[in-house]
Amino acid sequence: MIAKDIPDIVVSRLPRYLQTLEHMQKDGIRTTSSQELGDLIGISAAQIRKDLSQFGEFGKQGKGYSVDFLVDQLRQILNVNRSWDIVLVGAGNLGHAIANYQGFGNHGFSIVMIFDSDPALIGQKIGNLTVQDAAQMVDLVRASGIKVGMITVPAQAAQAVADELVKAGIQAILNYAPINLTVPEGVHVQHVDPIIYLQRMTYYLA
Amino acid sequence: MIAKDIPDIVVSRLPRYLQTLEHMQKDGIRTTSSQELGDLIGISAAQIRKDLSQFGEFGKQGKGYSVDFLVDQLRQILNVNRSWDIVLVGAGNLGHAIANYQGFGNHGFSIVMIFDSDPALIGQKIGNLTVQDAAQMVDLVRASGIKVGMITVPAQAAQAVADELVKAGIQAILNYAPINLTVPEGVHVQHVDPIIYLQRMTYYLA
Repeated sequence: MIAKDIPDIVVSRLPRYLQTLEHMQKDGIRTTSSQELGDLIGISAAQIRKDLSQFGEFGKQGKGYSVDFLVDQLRQILNVNRSWDIVLVGAGNLGHAIANYQGFGNHGFSIVMIFDSDPALIGQKIGNLTVQDAAQMVDLVRASGIKVGMITVPAQAAQAVADELVKAGIQAILNYAPINLTVPEGVHVQHVDPIIYLQRMTYYLA
Repeated sequence: MIAKDIPDIVVSRLPRYLQTLEHMQKDGIRTTSSQELGDLIGISAAQIRKDLSQFGEFGKQGKGYSVDFLVDQLRQILNVNRSWDIVLVGAGNLGHAIANYQGFGNHGFSIVMIFDSDPALIGQKIGNLTVQDAAQMVDLVRASGIKVGMITVPAQAAQAVADELVKAGIQAILNYAPINLTVPEGVHVQHVDPIIYLQRMTYYLA
């Protein structure tokens, strides 16, 4: 695989392709086409072929794609053919919900540390983890080598937490707080924003 | 504005355009270009021009776009130049977090009913709302005329909840449960899935 400079918009579509292909795999489907994939995802077949062709030759003309092969390749491209430890910051309701989220299991993501600055929460158990004091976060995260963080603190605290995570060596942040974070180049942020999802649906409501 | 059959993939990008333009507006920026917008969002200028041209003529060649005008138009297109009532199902940690989420305020979305089937949660206050018995959900939601629902119940309960919401007349569902919901044609579902966001970032991690 050649490491070209792939546009981020292409990268953004790959997890959706992988997710859909994994569902096919679970359903026992062995081959698929860009047309079928496109219909399921709501993207044109041409776009899918173009996106995948950025990474190599994955299908045979007229034969379609092997689902297993494509799943393997996409996992490799997205670096998810390994496991990732995650630090979660914010042990309120949302932090609890995410720490208990059942969806990470099969995808190689694992929350291994939880921090909060609230003395009432520090020391609490969430599943197997104990909420640790945010004052120790930079040192502990840096020592752990963890690269992925999640922020579930209130909006007004989120930027300061992001700054600390960056200081601790975190390179990817999933932000649930309703605020746009500023981070240095080379650090990646994704903002989980329910408004974006809701507006996408209200378009269709009379 | 002509109501053409706009591809869903185009619709999916509009909330991001609106969000970015609203930030510009807040920062006092009056005009922008497809190039500037594209750089901020990570989409090509040509794609943005093509997407917007589906809905009419919004900019003047060489003059760029008026931010205020484009915000107004996008709000109209997305049907968010009005307010939307929402029913939330699931009053656990995630339900609490979402009911208290500060990000809905300025966007015209308002959670007005919360349901759960757990006797320990029914009757609890979350902000100004009281958690109601899910057994009464279909009747109460139908009577209210609410069209938008959010599901924050465990995965194993989510499909049954979705079926009830559809029965009650809900046309748009924001699903936080880690499961793909099956709904009849004409009902829209968006799945808030942290895995998709995480995989999009691990691509960039060595």
